[in-house]
Amino acid sequence: MASESGKLWGGRFVGAVDPIMEKFNSSIAYDRHLWEVDVQGSKAYSRGLEKAGLLTKAEMDQILHGLDKVAEEWAQGTFKLSPNDEDIHTANERRLKELIGETAGKLHTGRSRNDQVVTDLRLWMRQNCSKLSSLLWELIRTMVDRAEAERDVLFPGYTHLQRAQPIRWSHWILSHAVALTRDSERLLEVQKRVNVLPLGSGAIAGNPLGVDRELLQAELNFGAITLNSMDATSERDFVAEFLFWASLCMTHLSRMAEDLILYGTKEFSFVQLSDAYSTGSSLMPQKKNPDSLELIRSKAGRVFGREDKEAVFEVSDTMSAVLQVATGVISTLQIHRENMARALSPDMLATDLAYYLVRKGMPFRQAHEASGKAVFMAETKGVALNQLSLKELQTISPLFSADVSHVWDYGHSVEQYAALGGTARASVDWQIGQVRALLRAQQA
Amino acid sequence: MASESGKLWGGRFVGAVDPIMEKFNSSIAYDRHLWEVDVQGSKAYSRGLEKAGLLTKAEMDQILHGLDKVAEEWAQGTFKLSPNDEDIHTANERRLKELIGETAGKLHTGRSRNDQVVTDLRLWMRQNCSKLSSLLWELIRTMVDRAEAERDVLFPGYTHLQRAQPIRWSHWILSHAVALTRDSERLLEVQKRVNVLPLGSGAIAGNPLGVDRELLQAELNFGAITLNSMDATSERDFVAEFLFWASLCMTHLSRMAEDLILYGTKEFSFVQLSDAYSTGSSLMPQKKNPDSLELIRSKAGRVFGREDKEAVFEVSDTMSAVLQVATGVISTLQIHRENMARALSPDMLATDLAYYLVRKGMPFRQAHEASGKAVFMAETKGVALNQLSLKELQTISPLFSADVSHVWDYGHSVEQYAALGGTARASVDWQIGQVRALLRAQQA
Amino acid sequence: MASESGKLWGGRFVGAVDPIMEKFNSSIAYDRHLWEVDVQGSKAYSRGLEKAGLLTKAEMDQILHGLDKVAEEWAQGTFKLSPNDEDIHTANERRLKELIGETAGKLHTGRSRNDQVVTDLRLWMRQNCSKLSSLLWELIRTMVDRAEAERDVLFPGYTHLQRAQPIRWSHWILSHAVALTRDSERLLEVQKRVNVLPLGSGAIAGNPLGVDRELLQAELNFGAITLNSMDATSERDFVAEFLFWASLCMTHLSRMAEDLILYGTKEFSFVQLSDAYSTGSSLMPQKKNPDSLELIRSKAGRVFGREDKEAVFEVSDTMSAVLQVATGVISTLQIHRENMARALSPDMLATDLAYYLVRKGMPFRQAHEASGKAVFMAETKGVALNQLSLKELQTISPLFSADVSHVWDYGHSVEQYAALGGTARASVDWQIGQVRALLRAQQA
Amino acid sequence: MASESGKLWGGRFVGAVDPIMEKFNSSIAYDRHLWEVDVQGSKAYSRGLEKAGLLTKAEMDQILHGLDKVAEEWAQGTFKLSPNDEDIHTANERRLKELIGETAGKLHTGRSRNDQVVTDLRLWMRQNCSKLSSLLWELIRTMVDRAEAERDVLFPGYTHLQRAQPIRWSHWILSHAVALTRDSERLLEVQKRVNVLPLGSGAIAGNPLGVDRELLQAELNFGAITLNSMDATSERDFVAEFLFWASLCMTHLSRMAEDLILYGTKEFSFVQLSDAYSTGSSLMPQKKNPDSLELIRSKAGRVFGREDKEAVFEVSDTMSAVLQVATGVISTLQIHRENMARALSPDMLATDLAYYLVRKGMPFRQAHEASGKAVFMAETKGVALNQLSLKELQTISPLFSADVSHVWDYGHSVEQYAALGGTARASVDWQIGQVRALLRAQQA
Repeated sequence: MASESGKLWGGRFVGAVDPIMEKFNSSIAYDRHLWEVDVQGSKAYSRGLEKAGLLTKAEMDQILHGLDKVAEEWAQGTFKLSPNDEDIHTANERRLKELIGETAGKLHTGRSRNDQVVTDLRLWMRQNCSKLSSLLWELIRTMVDRAEAERDVLFPGYTHLQRAQPIRWSHWILSHAVALTRDSERLLEVQKRVNVLPLGSGAIAGNPLGVDRELLQAELNFGAITLNSMDATSERDFVAEFLFWASLCMTHLSRMAEDLILYGTKEFSFVQLSDAYSTGSSLMPQKKNPDSLELIRSKAGRVFGREDKEAVFEVSDTMSAVLQVATGVISTLQIHRENMARALSPDMLATDLAYYLVRKGMPFRQAHEASGKAVFMAETKGVALNQLSLKELQTISPLFSADVSHVWDYGHSVEQYAALGGTARASVDWQIGQVRALLRAQQA
Repeated sequence: MASESGKLWGGRFVGAVDPIMEKFNSSIAYDRHLWEVDVQGSKAYSRGLEKAGLLTKAEMDQILHGLDKVAEEWAQGTFKLSPNDEDIHTANERRLKELIGETAGKLHTGRSRNDQVVTDLRLWMRQNCSKLSSLLWELIRTMVDRAEAERDVLFPGYTHLQRAQPIRWSHWILSHAVALTRDSERLLEVQKRVNVLPLGSGAIAGNPLGVDRELLQAELNFGAITLNSMDATSERDFVAEFLFWASLCMTHLSRMAEDLILYGTKEFSFVQLSDAYSTGSSLMPQKKNPDSLELIRSKAGRVFGREDKEAVFEVSDTMSAVLQVATGVISTLQIHRENMARALSPDMLATDLAYYLVRKGMPFRQAHEASGKAVFMAETKGVALNQLSLKELQTISPLFSADVSHVWDYGHSVEQYAALGGTARASVDWQIGQVRALLRAQQA
Repeated sequence: MASESGKLWGGRFVGAVDPIMEKFNSSIAYDRHLWEVDVQGSKAYSRGLEKAGLLTKAEMDQILHGLDKVAEEWAQGTFKLSPNDEDIHTANERRLKELIGETAGKLHTGRSRNDQVVTDLRLWMRQNCSKLSSLLWELIRTMVDRAEAERDVLFPGYTHLQRAQPIRWSHWILSHAVALTRDSERLLEVQKRVNVLPLGSGAIAGNPLGVDRELLQAELNFGAITLNSMDATSERDFVAEFLFWASLCMTHLSRMAEDLILYGTKEFSFVQLSDAYSTGSSLMPQKKNPDSLELIRSKAGRVFGREDKEAVFEVSDTMSAVLQVATGVISTLQIHRENMARALSPDMLATDLAYYLVRKGMPFRQAHEASGKAVFMAETKGVALNQLSLKELQTISPLFSADVSHVWDYGHSVEQYAALGGTARASVDWQIGQVRALLRAQQA
Repeated sequence: MASESGKLWGGRFVGAVDPIMEKFNSSIAYDRHLWEVDVQGSKAYSRGLEKAGLLTKAEMDQILHGLDKVAEEWAQGTFKLSPNDEDIHTANERRLKELIGETAGKLHTGRSRNDQVVTDLRLWMRQNCSKLSSLLWELIRTMVDRAEAERDVLFPGYTHLQRAQPIRWSHWILSHAVALTRDSERLLEVQKRVNVLPLGSGAIAGNPLGVDRELLQAELNFGAITLNSMDATSERDFVAEFLFWASLCMTHLSRMAEDLILYGTKEFSFVQLSDAYSTGSSLMPQKKNPDSLELIRSKAGRVFGREDKEAVFEVSDTMSAVLQVATGVISTLQIHRENMARALSPDMLATDLAYYLVRKGMPFRQAHEASGKAVFMAETKGVALNQLSLKELQTISPLFSADVSHVWDYGHSVEQYAALGGTARASVDWQIGQVRALLRAQQA
């Protein structure tokens, strides 16, 4: 008879189950991650049952003791799954029964499997969000430290992959670090909504047996209690939010990786990846591939479009690895200052040339056009923009005078960008201070 | 010469542009939404230029006046787009120049187009998030009011589309309202990150002309200032967050719509949609289709996977329509209490039957099995579960006695589910109170 | 020294590799599926090397023999992975070297890892597409057989979940079977593009050692040869196509599952799922959930948005299980003919009522309106549409006469729909014949 | 009364419709594209009605004449939409009625709106697939012509953005052209499944009035007839297939664009985009951005995840523009041969160096390691790989002798890759011939 199989729904079924169907329906392969929180949740629930008079003190102690034993077996790797264990919850209860006998059958009183699953998942994710927060902070801290140490290195800022303006190398690092601070802010918000107790919602109508949900909340240290039992067991917003968080964070890491891949090509030669984050080619002996960066980049696409438990486990693992690899990459990256300096060229100061005219009173639109003409003139003559003689410049505008020579100093150029958020040294220092303050605030 | 076309990048290009390419690159068709915030942003920026000494007071006044004129033309529908206006920003500046002459050319000093685009978009989205918040609150309020008014109506709660347990109709309404309160909470968080000033970031290196970003922040009433100029002009996290918000909110509305579609079928007949939210068939004269609900459901899939300006406009419009239609549907929906009552059947009390045994001391797992045997016995005999005689029940367990008859009362059943979040009347009242308190808090 | 680790790229690296990075980069966990085709591909390649004079006959025999041994170990479950085996290809070659010594090092001559990976993947997928084709045909055949056997059962056709017109139950089955024939057609097209040999493309520039690609094609029985070596090693169109195929096929199965879930509710009660495809509830003893159908439905969303090897393996397994479960469900499903008959109601003949007037000469738009008025009159009077008296109908149109009574026969109604593809018996028979002919053609 | 509004479903509704709901439900804004095929479909259907005896010859002529008039108004831009026209089909029938009176009401006899919508969509897409095929062929032809003309230009082939091996520039062009031939093959398959007649399927049960679907097929020149009326009106596989086709084709164009963006950076300087496909910066006068390429790249993400009519129209327009812009880009692109030549460096011949040893009898794995040691030695000594003395090489392997100097010739290197699909001149010529033959075959 079907009930002998020990499946949770007991005594009614007569037909046998198609074995393909059974495997199809089973989640034990990936939800083993939950063993620890499942025991934790069951212990709290048995305390709730005792307080409601549904377990005697002795029964509760027997269950608590049995559950500790189950946990011990998992921790020591001696827990044996049986082929009928379709998920972690069934497995733990089956084992509890073997250990303590019929009393085990009282643990599930008034609790539904959905109730239990979602409680376990929230407990696991709460833990995991904390872990990911720490890894993310570690990465940001590494970036800010590096930005502080290398404030004096200038190199080209790019837009559309074209050289645009000279900027500080630290300005580039901080542009990515700042994006990551938004991720860490969002992760705290996600965690706040993860940290809500669903237990005590039953299948759909709620709990009819006087279990005190505020007691459960206190036992499991949740920040709040779900408001509606139907919503509580079925909603997975917090999963969708976590996956979205991961996908956005990955997008940021992916963009940083893409920049670094480019900066590390022979053609750019601005940075060099540590051997610890590179691999070779099975065919071409001279190749050293930026595999760490390519993997970071490629993982971005993996996160979207799923909203299940498996995705949570997989994405959490990926995020954890990616954050650590990114931290390793940033902290071991070598930069080539001389190549960076060499890549700065006078045409990147064309905007400054326009501002020179603006400062002499020309409206910006005209100054932009005048500077564009200078660029065109230099190109046509085959010389660098700063090689045009004053006379030649004056054919474009009479406002050019000898002091135009000050425009051609890259250090002077970046120091102009002193508004909040710009690439001037003071502004970069301000950014470093702001990001550090944010980190302190988030960690508090 | 190319500069005569008045395109923003002025005097350098020699080749003509492929006309397909030009159309391909143009965003004017959808970014007209931005005319108002574009004028607003430019007015603030011209004040910043004046304070930095780059505009005289007279020039600033001329520009402010001209921009007001531009806005007036848009408001009155008299603004004429020219074929060369590739986006709203070009169009407004082109028109400003026609109105006030060369001074218009000073407005863009130190500002890049990205700088301007992202400022406009944030201004527009801030406004729009407020509007959507109001619509969402209106919907939640309508739902809670209805839940309060119809607390005494019982009907079947379903899981897996199978009748599960008797619940209050209000419990169902609240399960959806509670989900929507998370959406309104999230929308406020999104809005907080939308409400950050990027203006003054230039193209990439920042602003070199002494423009005071704190002044701009005050002028445009932003909550904070972006930290890094490169990040400021390129990041679109707030767009991705808004689209994700919309997709999650739509998922909730979609699930509610799906339930209502089902409840409105001939087979269920629990609710009837108002004619105002139904349409007919061009072929079948008797048909009345729940098109409003089907459209709400179908829109859910439309939101994902894009991260651009067009998507923001389109999704905002969709959300606005969907929230209003949903409010209309809920407030005009007719319910059929007698059908709801008729749909309750004794087998839905099988869980309560198990609890009856639990209260007599049987472990839940055994009680579940015993109740399952009763269900099977009733099915085999072809009678309803409450038609089994006491004697028959006692063949399953000697714990059954005459008081088992109290189990078969639906009203009594729901009243048991009195834990926080359950379907008992007191618990439903608590939910109503909680949701109203949340609304008040969010609106503050 | 790093080369001692036996990693493929040999002797150049000096730094050690970050262990997280190593794990991150490793694919051995999921690409073990490929062991058999990897051996197959290597055997063919060693024949190519021998013909090109790069292996002696003796060396080739040694390699072939060694590879057979490797395969034997996999087949018998005795193959031992070493911690340094980062993928299946490294593992097999490492083992080959242990078995036959240095000659093993000649096997990879002129072959790149990409070359080998993509060849293996194509071999595996070709095999797997055949398997899935067979399972899909089996499902379609089951459906057509059932459609043939139950041609005389009528029930309501629904649009927008509203009862629309009476149709044959077989017509519903065939609507889903026909969709699946498109999937089987598409799978053959995908397989055609999978079945193209990339081997001999090297890393990027091609093969410089005189390996005869037409020989390799013949050895591995490929239908064609890739045209360009760069494209050959990098393109994964065939993977994207396969995943798209799976997602579309799953969408069809998902829709069928959704219909069956609905038809199996208490409210509809048209069909009953076999116990072998149902599960129970851990809380509610009376519940019997259509988990097989819900799983089929839920899997649809899992397929999209990935384009990697892992996805191919996972999706293939899912498709294989889903097709078998669907076949099981369809072949064991019980139908309730009497409930189906009871669900037919006179208002579903309103379209036929309009056609009655059309046949008497009234333009359809007017007839549709007249029939609509009859529906409204019946609703207002609270009677069924066929209970309206002739006199009452004549107040709507004088064209109604006594023969209108023939409209109210459901069997007569469906027999009218005799155009190709309709629900008349002859038309259903035609569909059955067409689908069977298609199956025969595809299997040939 | 509601029927006076002329909405298709006539006379039953009593309530008014929420205006937001009405706008929400309306598709007229985007389905105007369909006016031409809607008239075409209606003309064919009226012929079918005449043959079935439901229209007299005179009525049919009146309708045909009226529909021609409607088409004329659309063509001349004089068609006036009325606010009640919720879609193109309603609009055309409303106008027909104004033009020819009550007979217009006979046109929809036995046809449902779904029937009509899906027929129109298939007609429109068939036309559009042909147009896109032509544009795609034009692009491939341009690429192949260019590949033929520039066969003698060598440049670096990259993997992981690292310089890998010398290849022909034509080899790169062909790698992308070959990918596009798969797209054109797939487009023909999509078109085959688009080109199937659904008309005559009614709402769900089929057509009951003796309309001859084979006549309709012949009138509208469809390749086949849908098999099942329920499937025919609801399935949109052909839309999903078209969108998938577009997304895959866009992925290919996107990858080509990405390569070209990179090759056009200052750092690579291999190619230069024509001014006709570049734009400038509103701030930086020297910038020339590859906007055409960036737009092609960015459009790739836009295509996924939607399956509706709007998506078809939007994606078709995008594809049409993208294919033309890509053709323009390729045909006007300037290449810098000297920079390409300069970018070749001796370490890219490390694979050839390994093959040199293989040819002297060393197993490849050892040869790869020996060559890797040579690379490491050269790096350590700070010289180019070909600057190592014979003596130095012999410390790595005694197999090196004076003839190793032949390895350092790039032209000689590429000529080795003569297997089918490789970068040797003969192999490139073979590819050109194969692609041209494919084009001829597809166009036939």
